[in-house]
Amino acid sequence: MSEEPTAKRSKVEDAEALIPSQEFDAIDNIQSELDALNDQAGDEIVKIEQKYNALRAPVYAKRSEAIKSVPNFWGIAFLNHPTLSSTVAEVEEGFIQHIHSIEVEEFADIKSGYKIKFSFHPNEYMETEQIEKEFHLTGDTPYSKVTPIVWKAGNNVLEQITRNRHPIPSDSLTFTEWLLSDSDPTMDEIAEIIKDDLWPNPVQYFLVPDIEEDDEEENGEGAE
Amino acid sequence: MSEEPTAKRSKVEDAEALIPSQEFDAIDNIQSELDALNDQAGDEIVKIEQKYNALRAPVYAKRSEAIKSVPNFWGIAFLNHPTLSSTVAEVEEGFIQHIHSIEVEEFADIKSGYKIKFSFHPNEYMETEQIEKEFHLTGDTPYSKVTPIVWKAGNNVLEQITRNRHPIPSDSLTFTEWLLSDSDPTMDEIAEIIKDDLWPNPVQYFLVPDIEEDDEEENGEGAE
Repeated sequence: MSEEPTAKRSKVEDAEALIPSQEFDAIDNIQSELDALNDQAGDEIVKIEQKYNALRAPVYAKRSEAIKSVPNFWGIAFLNHPTLSSTVAEVEEGFIQHIHSIEVEEFADIKSGYKIKFSFHPNEYMETEQIEKEFHLTGDTPYSKVTPIVWKAGNNVLEQITRNRHPIPSDSLTFTEWLLSDSDPTMDEIAEIIKDDLWPNPVQYFLVPDIEEDDEEENGEGAE
Repeated sequence: MSEEPTAKRSKVEDAEALIPSQEFDAIDNIQSELDALNDQAGDEIVKIEQKYNALRAPVYAKRSEAIKSVPNFWGIAFLNHPTLSSTVAEVEEGFIQHIHSIEVEEFADIKSGYKIKFSFHPNEYMETEQIEKEFHLTGDTPYSKVTPIVWKAGNNVLEQITRNRHPIPSDSLTFTEWLLSDSDPTMDEIAEIIKDDLWPNPVQYFLVPDIEEDDEEENGEGAE
């Protein structure tokens, strides 16, 4: 195992001694020109994204209102989503049916982060009706923070999850565990799926249940 | 294993029967408004990227010229790159030292793909001095294609790799295997690292060798 890196390494050292320093300064200056162009391009793209976030906001607000008239829209979309559904433990399924709305809001400067707002119908699981989870992506230590949940007596979903299984690896949090965790927001797969996939177009997940199971269902439970 | 999906599934079916169709049409129309805004935003961002590709092109050309005066710049950057170096089999190390330039060029419309151009000093391995690998990302079947390599007798690197080991899984191609493969360009990790990481700033990899090995090297081989 250690032979190969050493072989590569010695070539690297020989070659470093050969760097002509003026030529190298020239490359470094050119690289700075490229950096400056990249920064400018980034700034222009952020401005466009801000402009379209502002244009999309009222349309998203209209969509949120319309969605409220479809019973359990978000719960169904969530349970139909191929990745998100796998985060929902059995004890969480009832809880998820009470989601009244999901909204994603990027911070004004875009790069610094976003928040996901869940609101719930009054339900048997918790007093809390509005949960906001914020993802702060910049600064020395990116962090996430979330509204604390006040569970109703005997119905603490998080406790039930913890009681029902052994400690789990951090890469397979259930929905509630994810919601209440303060994981590193720069690599939060669930948050990113909600923001970049579910939120932009939830209708596709609301409408399309898992195809593979259709045949079994029809044979086993064809009630009507 | 099969219980959970079935449980979820039956809830989904109950709920689908409850969709009020006018409300649903309203959501669908709003979703179309969002799609239109997203398309517009995408078009504006592509225009900015095209503008900056045009501005960057002469700077990249200047950098390519400057790099040619640093012996073995690309070979060293490649072998120092934490991921790319792991694709280089021992028999390929000599071959890679002869890379004279690497250039990445996005297609004019950006979305449809890009090409990576490798040019080589005359060398003992192959007659071919210019290899272009193109990645076509759009259309019904995305594809990649590459200039065929004419190897010199007895020095066919690909043959040596194939002879020296068992068939390998497709996710661990060596550099030459990757170069000559026509893999799916929409999930080509090596191509993306070259395009989005090595090409934008190769200087960092040229300059920074693997830190972990420094101590060993000094003890074992301090020649000067």
